[in-house]
Amino acid sequence: MTSLDELCINTIRTLVMDAVQKAKSGHPGMPMGAAPMAYVLWTRHLRLNPRNPDWFGRDRFILSAGHGSMLLYSLLHLSGFDLSLDDIKNFRQLGSKTPGHPEHGLTPGVEVSTGPLGQGFGNTVGIAIAQAHLAARFNQPGFPIVDFRVYGICSDGDLMEGVSSEATSLAGHFKLGNLIFLYDDNAITIEGSTSLTFSEDVGRRFDALGWHVQRVDGNDLEAVDGALKNAKEEKSKPSLIIARTHIACGSPNKQDTAAAHGAPLGEEEVALTKRNLGWPYAEPFTVPAEAYAPFREAAKRGAESESKWKDLLARYEKEHPKLAAEWKAFMQGELSENWRSLLPKFLSSDKPIATRTASGNVLNALAHEVPALFGGSADLAPSTMTYLDGFGDFSADNYAGRNIHFGIREHAMGTCISGIALTAPFQVFGSTFLIFSDYMRPAIRLAAMTKLKVIYVFSHDSIGLGEDGPSHQPVEHLAALRAIPNLIVLRPADAKETVAAWEFTLEHKSGPVALILSRQALPILDIEQSVISSGVRRGGYVVYESKKNMPQLLLLATGSEVHLIIAAAMELEKEGIAARAVSLPSWELFQQQPRAYRDEILPPSITARLAVEAASPLGWERFVGLQGAAIGMETFGASAPGGKLFEHFGFTVQNIVEKARSFPL
Amino acid sequence: MTSLDELCINTIRTLVMDAVQKAKSGHPGMPMGAAPMAYVLWTRHLRLNPRNPDWFGRDRFILSAGHGSMLLYSLLHLSGFDLSLDDIKNFRQLGSKTPGHPEHGLTPGVEVSTGPLGQGFGNTVGIAIAQAHLAARFNQPGFPIVDFRVYGICSDGDLMEGVSSEATSLAGHFKLGNLIFLYDDNAITIEGSTSLTFSEDVGRRFDALGWHVQRVDGNDLEAVDGALKNAKEEKSKPSLIIARTHIACGSPNKQDTAAAHGAPLGEEEVALTKRNLGWPYAEPFTVPAEAYAPFREAAKRGAESESKWKDLLARYEKEHPKLAAEWKAFMQGELSENWRSLLPKFLSSDKPIATRTASGNVLNALAHEVPALFGGSADLAPSTMTYLDGFGDFSADNYAGRNIHFGIREHAMGTCISGIALTAPFQVFGSTFLIFSDYMRPAIRLAAMTKLKVIYVFSHDSIGLGEDGPSHQPVEHLAALRAIPNLIVLRPADAKETVAAWEFTLEHKSGPVALILSRQALPILDIEQSVISSGVRRGGYVVYESKKNMPQLLLLATGSEVHLIIAAAMELEKEGIAARAVSLPSWELFQQQPRAYRDEILPPSITARLAVEAASPLGWERFVGLQGAAIGMETFGASAPGGKLFEHFGFTVQNIVEKARSFPL
Repeated sequence: MTSLDELCINTIRTLVMDAVQKAKSGHPGMPMGAAPMAYVLWTRHLRLNPRNPDWFGRDRFILSAGHGSMLLYSLLHLSGFDLSLDDIKNFRQLGSKTPGHPEHGLTPGVEVSTGPLGQGFGNTVGIAIAQAHLAARFNQPGFPIVDFRVYGICSDGDLMEGVSSEATSLAGHFKLGNLIFLYDDNAITIEGSTSLTFSEDVGRRFDALGWHVQRVDGNDLEAVDGALKNAKEEKSKPSLIIARTHIACGSPNKQDTAAAHGAPLGEEEVALTKRNLGWPYAEPFTVPAEAYAPFREAAKRGAESESKWKDLLARYEKEHPKLAAEWKAFMQGELSENWRSLLPKFLSSDKPIATRTASGNVLNALAHEVPALFGGSADLAPSTMTYLDGFGDFSADNYAGRNIHFGIREHAMGTCISGIALTAPFQVFGSTFLIFSDYMRPAIRLAAMTKLKVIYVFSHDSIGLGEDGPSHQPVEHLAALRAIPNLIVLRPADAKETVAAWEFTLEHKSGPVALILSRQALPILDIEQSVISSGVRRGGYVVYESKKNMPQLLLLATGSEVHLIIAAAMELEKEGIAARAVSLPSWELFQQQPRAYRDEILPPSITARLAVEAASPLGWERFVGLQGAAIGMETFGASAPGGKLFEHFGFTVQNIVEKARSFPL
Repeated sequence: MTSLDELCINTIRTLVMDAVQKAKSGHPGMPMGAAPMAYVLWTRHLRLNPRNPDWFGRDRFILSAGHGSMLLYSLLHLSGFDLSLDDIKNFRQLGSKTPGHPEHGLTPGVEVSTGPLGQGFGNTVGIAIAQAHLAARFNQPGFPIVDFRVYGICSDGDLMEGVSSEATSLAGHFKLGNLIFLYDDNAITIEGSTSLTFSEDVGRRFDALGWHVQRVDGNDLEAVDGALKNAKEEKSKPSLIIARTHIACGSPNKQDTAAAHGAPLGEEEVALTKRNLGWPYAEPFTVPAEAYAPFREAAKRGAESESKWKDLLARYEKEHPKLAAEWKAFMQGELSENWRSLLPKFLSSDKPIATRTASGNVLNALAHEVPALFGGSADLAPSTMTYLDGFGDFSADNYAGRNIHFGIREHAMGTCISGIALTAPFQVFGSTFLIFSDYMRPAIRLAAMTKLKVIYVFSHDSIGLGEDGPSHQPVEHLAALRAIPNLIVLRPADAKETVAAWEFTLEHKSGPVALILSRQALPILDIEQSVISSGVRRGGYVVYESKKNMPQLLLLATGSEVHLIIAAAMELEKEGIAARAVSLPSWELFQQQPRAYRDEILPPSITARLAVEAASPLGWERFVGLQGAAIGMETFGASAPGGKLFEHFGFTVQNIVEKARSFPL
C-alpha cells in the first residue's frame, strides 16, 4: 500500500466518521472496514463517468449493504459526481442528497435504492440479467455496445436474507459471468459476532450454487486487485470475493465490535481513531487535495471509455442501421405507432374468459411489436399466462430469450425485475399468484419508492381460485397492495378491462403497476372498448345505469364481482329500485381524478352505497362511508370449487340484491 | 420390496389418483413419487398414536410440500387416524376434512398447515428448536420426557424459496440433530424440468450449511430405511436425505412430466397407471384389507410408546416433583396467579419513554414468572428491546437459553416461532422493525389462518424512527397487517398502554398478536392504569374529554399520535371547541365490542371526526366516514431526525388544531 493509497482510504474513513458524528446517527463501521476494497474497485476497475452518471455503457456499482451509505457518498464525492462536501455535511438531514440509505433518483451515481438487506443483492442479479439479455440482442461481432460489468458490495446481513439465496441460485444457474460481488466479511452484526447466528461456510454455499469463489484479506489492496482481475477473467460464472474486513477498522476501542455498526463512534473515539490512523487534520470533513487524484484519474479513464463507446455506437449505426434504430427506440422507451391496433378485440358475445387468459392474449399479441416486453414467472407461467410464445427462454445458452424462468423464487423475481427496470426502459413483468405477492413485498415496496416501471401480474386473485384452499386464496392482499404509495393496483372486470389495463400499463412510466387477474372465466361487458379504456384509465366509471330514474343506490365492485353488481342492478330495476353499478378497477387512478369526475361517478347525495369485492373490505369505507356497506371477506377462505365458495361467502346476485334492499331508500 | 410393501405403496398411489380424479383438481404426481419413502418412514420409524393424535411425546411429521396433501391424507387414513374413506372421497369439497392443502386444526394428525412453499420447512425447524429447548429444560438423567424427532418431506419448490435457505442455515447453526428431512427430488416443477431453473448442488449447499447429507433412490425401500437409520444416529447435525423420485411414478404417459404436477391424470391415464402398477381392483378408492396391516402395526407400536412415555412421566413426577409441576403448568399454558402484580408501574410524572422500552421492561419483569416466554429477534434485540436478561442464549451449547438469535432472517423467524407455538403452549415472540414485517408476511398469514398463539414485536413503527429514511419507515404496514383476518394488531400510545397490551397478549390464545412500538420516547398518559388496561382490552376508549360541553368533534389516533390529539383537544377547548380524544390501539378488538360500546365511544351523531396516524390512512374511513378526514402518510417518508419529520408531514398539534377548525361545527 502506497502512502497515497493510505491517504485516500483514510480520507474515506474520516469523512464517514465525521458525517455520522455530525448527523448524530448512522453506520460508521462498515464503510471504515470496506474502504480499502472499495478504493481498489473504484480507482482501478470500475468504469464510470461522473460527469454523465447515466451513460449507458458504464459499469454498475451497487452497495447492497445500504447502511454503509457514507462509503458510497464518499466515493461519489471523491470521484467527482455532483455531490459536494456540503452535501456530505448534510448527511441524514431533511431534503439533503445524502439520506440515511442510498436513494436512486435522488443522488447522482446511486444506481439502486438499498438498505433493506438482500434487496440490493437481488437487484444486482437483475441488472446482470438485463446486461446479458441486451448484449445478446444487440451486440454484433466487433460491436460490443453492451459490455459493462455489474459490481456489488454485500454484507453478512445480505447473505443471511433468503432473497439473496434465491438470487444467488438464479445467478449461478444463468452463469452470469458479468457479475462480481465483494462480500464484506466483517464478522459483526447488530447483536454481536456473526458466530451467534451465522456459522455456515459461505464460500462453499456459493460454490454449490455455481459461483466462482475467492477469499482475500480485505485490507490487502493487491490481493483485492488480483481477485477482481480473476473475477473479470471468469466469464462463465458469477464471482464472489470473500474479503475478510474489520468493522470500524482503525478505531482503537470499537474496531471489530457491534458498537461500531449503527451509532456514531463518539467525539473522543473519532479523535483517537484519527490519531491511530495517522490523520493529521484537526478540521472535520478535511479532504486533502492529493486524495482526489486517483479517483479523478479513474474518472478520466471513464470519460475516455464513454467517448470510445460513443464512437463505437456511431459506427454500429452505420454498420447495423436496423439494429441501431431498434436500439435507439428501446433506449428511449418508445412504443411503436401501431401497437394499439394489435390489441385483441373482445366482444360481449364471446364466451366468458378469465382475465388471466385475456392478459395472456394481450401479451402475446404485443410481444413482437413491443420488443421491450421481457419477463417471466416464479414457476407459474402456465397458470398466470405470461409466457411469450416463440420468444425463447432466457438461459445461459440463450440470453436473448425473452421468457425468464425464475423458479419458485418470488422474492428474487421481484428484486430482479426491479434491476432490469433500472438498466433500461424495459416493459418488464414478473408473474405469480396474488397470494404469493406476500413473498415479494419488500421488492414491490422498494420499486414503488424508487418509481420503477415494473409490472406485476398477479393471477388467481380471490377465493374464486377454488379448491387450493385458504392458504392459496388472497383475502388481505388487495388492501395490502393498495396501501403502498406510488403503486397502481388494477383489477380488471373482464377481458375488455384487461385490454384497457394493459394499455394503461404500457404507457405508465412513473412507477410499478400490479395487475390483479382472475383464474375463473368472466362474462365480457356489453360496453364499447373505447368507453372501457377511458373508464379504466380514470380508475372508475359507470358500467350500468338504471334506465328509468335517477339512481337511488350505488353498487361498487372490481374484477370478478363487477358482473354480479350489474346483474344485481338489473334485478333491482325490476323491483323499481334504480341502482347504478360502478366498476372501480383502480382506486389509485380514480383518486387522481378531479373531484368533479369522482362526484359525477359517485354522487355525494347518494349515501346508499354497497361495495362488493371478494377480499378484505378494509378501505372500501372511503367509497361507501359510514352509511354504506360492503360485502367482502372478513375471514380466510376455504377449499371447494370456486363457484361454491362464491355462494358460500355471499358473492351472489341474490345476496347483493338482498343487502341492497335493506338500505332505507 | 415385498409384495405387501408394494401393495401398500400402490394403495397410496391409487387413493391419490382416485381422489384427485374425483375432485377434478389436485396434485397427484408428488404423492405417487414420494409414496415409497413415506411408507418406509411411517411404518418403520415414525412414532405416532392415531388414537391420540395430540400425544405430546409423538414424533412430528410435516409435509412441507403441502400440495401433496393426498399423500398425507392416505397415510393418516391407513394409520387409523380419524379420517375415513368417505373423507378422502370428499377431497377438496366444502366443509370436508380433506382440503386442497393440509390445515392444522381441521384434520387430526395434520401437524402444520402447509402449501405455500418453504413455510412448512421453516415451521419444522421451529418445532425442532422447541423440542431441543424443552428437552434441555425438562429432561433429567434417566428421564428423557422430551425425546421426539421431527421429520419432514420437502420438495424442489420448498428448497428454492429463500425462507428455506434461512431456516436451513439456522438449523445447521443450532446443530439440530433431532431434525430429519426427506427431500423429494423429482426434478419436475410446474414450468417443466428443474433444469430450467434449479441447477444448484443441493447436497453441497446443505453440507455447507452444517447438515448431514445422504443420497438415495427414493424407490429403494431399504436404502431409504438405511438412510433414516443413519440420520437418527447423527445427533449433532440435522439431516437431509436426498431421495431421487419420479413424479407420478407408475403412470405410463405422465411419469416424470410437469403434466402430472397439478392436475388429475385423467380417467384413461388412471386406468393405464393402475394396470401398469398391477392393481387388480376396478372400484376406485379400494383399500385392500392387507394394506392396513403395516400401518396398524406401527400404530400399535406408537400406542405402546405412549404408554411407556406416560409411565416415564409418572415416575418423573415422583422423582422430580418440582420440575414435573412446572412441566404440567407449562403444557397447560397456565399463567401463575401473581404474574400481573409483577407488571411495571408507570406514572404520568415519569419521563417520556419509548413504547419499545416499556415493552422491554414488561418482558424482563415477567420473564422469571412466565417461563413459557421464549423468543428472539432477527438481529435487532438491542433495538426492539426484547432480550430476556439473564436467561441465556439458545445455542447448540445451551438449548435451555431463552433468547433466540435468528440472525438477519425475518422470514425464518416467522416460520420458526409458528413451529414453536405448534409444539407447546409457549408465549413465543419474534421481534424486528415494523418495516421488516414485510419479509415475514407469509408466515404471519399462516399463523393467523392456523390461529397460532405467536407474538410479533414490531418496533420503529413510523417516520418517527427518523434518519434511516424511507426504506426503513413503515407507511403501509399497519393497514397491511390490519387486513389479515385473525391477527390482533395493537399499537399502544404510551408505556401504560404497552403494559395493557402485553396483559392482553399473554392471555390471548386464539391467534397471533402484533405489537407495534415506537422508537421515540412518548409522554405517559395521565390516566389510571386500570382504566387504560380496560380500554386497551376493548380496543378503544376515551383519553380526553372536554370539561365544558358535549363533544362536537372526535379526534382519533393510535400510538405515538395519541398525545398529539390530547394536546390538540386541550388547545381546541381554549377556543371553545369541545373535542373528545379517542385512543384506538386495536381496531380488531374495538370492532369485537358490542355496538353500544362503540357508539358510546364514537357517537354516531358526531360526524366531525379527524383521525391522526403516521401511516397510510387506508381504512380510517371506517371510523371517520365520508364527512371526516385523516392526517396520515400518503407518500413514503424521508431521511431526517424524527421530530423534524413529524413536523414536515403534519403530525403536529398545530396542524391537527387547524384541520379540526375547518370542520363545520
